[in-house]
Amino acid sequence: MPKYCTMEAYRFSRERKSSGTVVDVSGVKVGGREIVIAAGPCSVESEEQLMDTAKGVIGAGAGIIRGGAFKPRTSPYSFQGLGKEGLGILKEAGRRFDVPIVTELMDTGLVELYSRDVDLIQVGARNSQNFDMLKRLGKQKRPVLLKNGTGTSVQEWLMSSEYVLSEGNSSVILCYRGAKSIEGATRFSMDMGAIAMARKLSHMLICVDPSHAAGRREFVAPMALAAIAAGADMLEIEVHNDPDKALSDREQQLSIGEFEELMNRARDVAKAVGRSIRKG
Amino acid sequence: MPKYCTMEAYRFSRERKSSGTVVDVSGVKVGGREIVIAAGPCSVESEEQLMDTAKGVIGAGAGIIRGGAFKPRTSPYSFQGLGKEGLGILKEAGRRFDVPIVTELMDTGLVELYSRDVDLIQVGARNSQNFDMLKRLGKQKRPVLLKNGTGTSVQEWLMSSEYVLSEGNSSVILCYRGAKSIEGATRFSMDMGAIAMARKLSHMLICVDPSHAAGRREFVAPMALAAIAAGADMLEIEVHNDPDKALSDREQQLSIGEFEELMNRARDVAKAVGRSIRKG
Amino acid sequence: MPKYCTMEAYRFSRERKSSGTVVDVSGVKVGGREIVIAAGPCSVESEEQLMDTAKGVIGAGAGIIRGGAFKPRTSPYSFQGLGKEGLGILKEAGRRFDVPIVTELMDTGLVELYSRDVDLIQVGARNSQNFDMLKRLGKQKRPVLLKNGTGTSVQEWLMSSEYVLSEGNSSVILCYRGAKSIEGATRFSMDMGAIAMARKLSHMLICVDPSHAAGRREFVAPMALAAIAAGADMLEIEVHNDPDKALSDREQQLSIGEFEELMNRARDVAKAVGRSIRKG
Amino acid sequence: MPKYCTMEAYRFSRERKSSGTVVDVSGVKVGGREIVIAAGPCSVESEEQLMDTAKGVIGAGAGIIRGGAFKPRTSPYSFQGLGKEGLGILKEAGRRFDVPIVTELMDTGLVELYSRDVDLIQVGARNSQNFDMLKRLGKQKRPVLLKNGTGTSVQEWLMSSEYVLSEGNSSVILCYRGAKSIEGATRFSMDMGAIAMARKLSHMLICVDPSHAAGRREFVAPMALAAIAAGADMLEIEVHNDPDKALSDREQQLSIGEFEELMNRARDVAKAVGRSIRKG
Repeated sequence: MPKYCTMEAYRFSRERKSSGTVVDVSGVKVGGREIVIAAGPCSVESEEQLMDTAKGVIGAGAGIIRGGAFKPRTSPYSFQGLGKEGLGILKEAGRRFDVPIVTELMDTGLVELYSRDVDLIQVGARNSQNFDMLKRLGKQKRPVLLKNGTGTSVQEWLMSSEYVLSEGNSSVILCYRGAKSIEGATRFSMDMGAIAMARKLSHMLICVDPSHAAGRREFVAPMALAAIAAGADMLEIEVHNDPDKALSDREQQLSIGEFEELMNRARDVAKAVGRSIRKG
Repeated sequence: MPKYCTMEAYRFSRERKSSGTVVDVSGVKVGGREIVIAAGPCSVESEEQLMDTAKGVIGAGAGIIRGGAFKPRTSPYSFQGLGKEGLGILKEAGRRFDVPIVTELMDTGLVELYSRDVDLIQVGARNSQNFDMLKRLGKQKRPVLLKNGTGTSVQEWLMSSEYVLSEGNSSVILCYRGAKSIEGATRFSMDMGAIAMARKLSHMLICVDPSHAAGRREFVAPMALAAIAAGADMLEIEVHNDPDKALSDREQQLSIGEFEELMNRARDVAKAVGRSIRKG
Repeated sequence: MPKYCTMEAYRFSRERKSSGTVVDVSGVKVGGREIVIAAGPCSVESEEQLMDTAKGVIGAGAGIIRGGAFKPRTSPYSFQGLGKEGLGILKEAGRRFDVPIVTELMDTGLVELYSRDVDLIQVGARNSQNFDMLKRLGKQKRPVLLKNGTGTSVQEWLMSSEYVLSEGNSSVILCYRGAKSIEGATRFSMDMGAIAMARKLSHMLICVDPSHAAGRREFVAPMALAAIAAGADMLEIEVHNDPDKALSDREQQLSIGEFEELMNRARDVAKAVGRSIRKG
Repeated sequence: MPKYCTMEAYRFSRERKSSGTVVDVSGVKVGGREIVIAAGPCSVESEEQLMDTAKGVIGAGAGIIRGGAFKPRTSPYSFQGLGKEGLGILKEAGRRFDVPIVTELMDTGLVELYSRDVDLIQVGARNSQNFDMLKRLGKQKRPVLLKNGTGTSVQEWLMSSEYVLSEGNSSVILCYRGAKSIEGATRFSMDMGAIAMARKLSHMLICVDPSHAAGRREFVAPMALAAIAAGADMLEIEVHNDPDKALSDREQQLSIGEFEELMNRARDVAKAVGRSIRKG
């Protein structure tokens, strides 16, 4: 256990704020008794694909639509997303279904655009220590969904959040997406200890992304239910209206039917830990 | 995802047995709808300590008493347990409260003794690839609780179980106790993916030990509840009648009151996933 | 071993170029028989500090001066470097001693400035998958020193280099700075296998930074010598004219005397593997 | 860096013994200026195979013959070694070539046999925390070659050595064989920091086994040379007279020709760091 002798010095610190944090995502309040679910495809592939998926996930209870417009891909030759066109489709879905949207920011030069058009700005694992990006996000008003890096510790992750907080933006939600591990069979570990530790050290809200850690559809549900049992305030789940035809992360995206089933089970577990799933 | 081209060749394999496995621990059946809780001190320190603790945990619903007699300690100068005296106290507790006992085997030379006196023989992380020990345990009748090594993969863990199974003993319960990770803040990662993967690849029952991964009392409950939500069939939890005076693992042992509270919450989560906690 | 069925498709690939790669850093050629040493302080702290250190390391045989102007620090409250003033001091040192300079780029908005003023642009571990930054560096002419992320695999690291190469800049030197590991005693593992694997899969030059992995002065030399024995083409080493007064990374910076001693030993090991250290 | 406030309490501790440790392996002295090479096949497969290989490696300068008789295999269905027959062949080779033999102990019940017949008793990664085995080895006279576990830290490894030392056997050589890591491409990391840390904290001799970490023939040489540069006192290398026909670890065993070439390069690197390779 590291020493945090100056913990109260940090804005993220639990010692500075024991009461419940709430982050307002364009009217959807994250924090408190209700757990918010963000769902949608890995990548926005077409208007039809997104609208179909959005309709399905909102019908099942999702409160926020997720979708990748600018995609971070390990290889430059993989599908990079539809870019601004994808962002336009996302915005249209947000308007049509009257829900906030969350999508990942890849380019510091687009902070202004995102700040105008995106309800919740996601910082992915690869930029989780891109301090320049974090500081710029700290200077604008939109809430930030900050993923951990696949090789960062909880302490480093919290320090990354401090780069946003210290610039004046207090609306940061931490999103745990698993970490690199010595296990070869799953993509990333889904360590309940990281969640528990982040909740102990900070007053910040915890979102959990089981999809990227799972890497396979069938592991998304046990990881999601476990995260709720361990105290998550929000989940972000990849759902596709036709997963087998997805252009990216095909193996891990749930179908709408699988998502509906997961939501039913999530409601039961949420209730068991004294919470509920927000109605979409 | 590794290829298991010959998975059906393995006795642990899900492909060989899709129906529910049940392991009979001296009358307490692990597997099926009910979740069994083993609880008790890290080390048996005295008759009074064990009896007090046993009374408390059984009153709260534990179905099996755990306690260390021969203790594996990283340093040879740390408290090594009471040895045979500790085993005698454990047996007496089993008789008095009429419940099975589980304790760790450290010495291959003691297989015969354990086979006679111990209801569920635990193989710890450090001996999880001690194949000589595993083969000997395969040749006797008592059920085996097989922990993963802190540096072993799920596949290696399952292969270790095969060393027991292939010698004729089909009563093996896997016990996930976390793994070494790049996170510096918790002792071991508590990776829900490892549990999900073990359940997918094998038909074997999964016990989860949150205490060693947590390393701190306050993280035991979120990890335990997460494990139930992820599908665990059994939990093994360290509880001490006076944790602050414990001779080992002081930081992570629950008090009886904390254990009672955890059991109440565990009942709710178990119910939410269609199961229940076995009454002690 | 991953399958690289389409390895020849990648510009980094060994299959595309078996002959020796050479990167020209403002006249200092990296690659070939001579090993180039970049040395200098973690952070540029003052003109006096940098000039003193530069004089010392060049006298000992360093061919490139390193120094942090904009510093990536886990905490926003740690010393962030002198910024543009630091860059100015670095440039002045380059002019005065007639050697190239290497310094880390933290902000995509500064690519143009770095492209003009910096001989070798370093991308640090935290931005190793900042694809926006990498693509912009691919569109300018200066050579790039690309560190691995602390949680990235060799394959991911090579793919990051492809983001630069595929935009037209073929002058990329990989710099291995260690990775997160399960070992608690050192800061990062210094894995010779990562170096060997990168050399097998790619034709790219390998620099090794032992200072960040070591975390302690006394481990820098064995790591540096091992890297030369394993085939490194370049080393980047932190040296300070008065390490005990350093504003960052105090524990791991060598004194000039220690650096001189290391250089003597490095010459012997280089010779033993058929190479030599470039004279500064 | 962990605190070792009571380091002088440990027999392995550098604080207890600053002068050079020497371990006598049946007349071959490990420690001092000369580096000893143990070489031979992963498994003893036949008399012809071992004698051929032994002749080759001794001709090339190996000072100790290695070979597996009882093999630790992750799967119970993999080739388990020739057992006592293999041990007999090894002994015969030792006699014929007048060199010591090293082989792994798998079964605590065989300590007495090994103590009589084996010059250097190897404890493999899987038994590196089998404290019962370690204590028994501490009560006999033969030197012990103690590998680190794939998931143990340097501190845990040293503590394992203390189990042998504290029972009265001071002849322990540590053997680093790499550790589990987040890198998917090599089998185990070959972390020079672990070697440097073990040498700092303890006075014990360090052997390095590059073969198991490499997992592939072509990575053995860079790892072996790096280990010498980093200060190893001994190497253990898998060599087979016909690697493509090996019954285990086919990919990582060197041919005799490759071993000869490695030895030539090792001599140069050893000389560069002020040492030499012992003549076989």
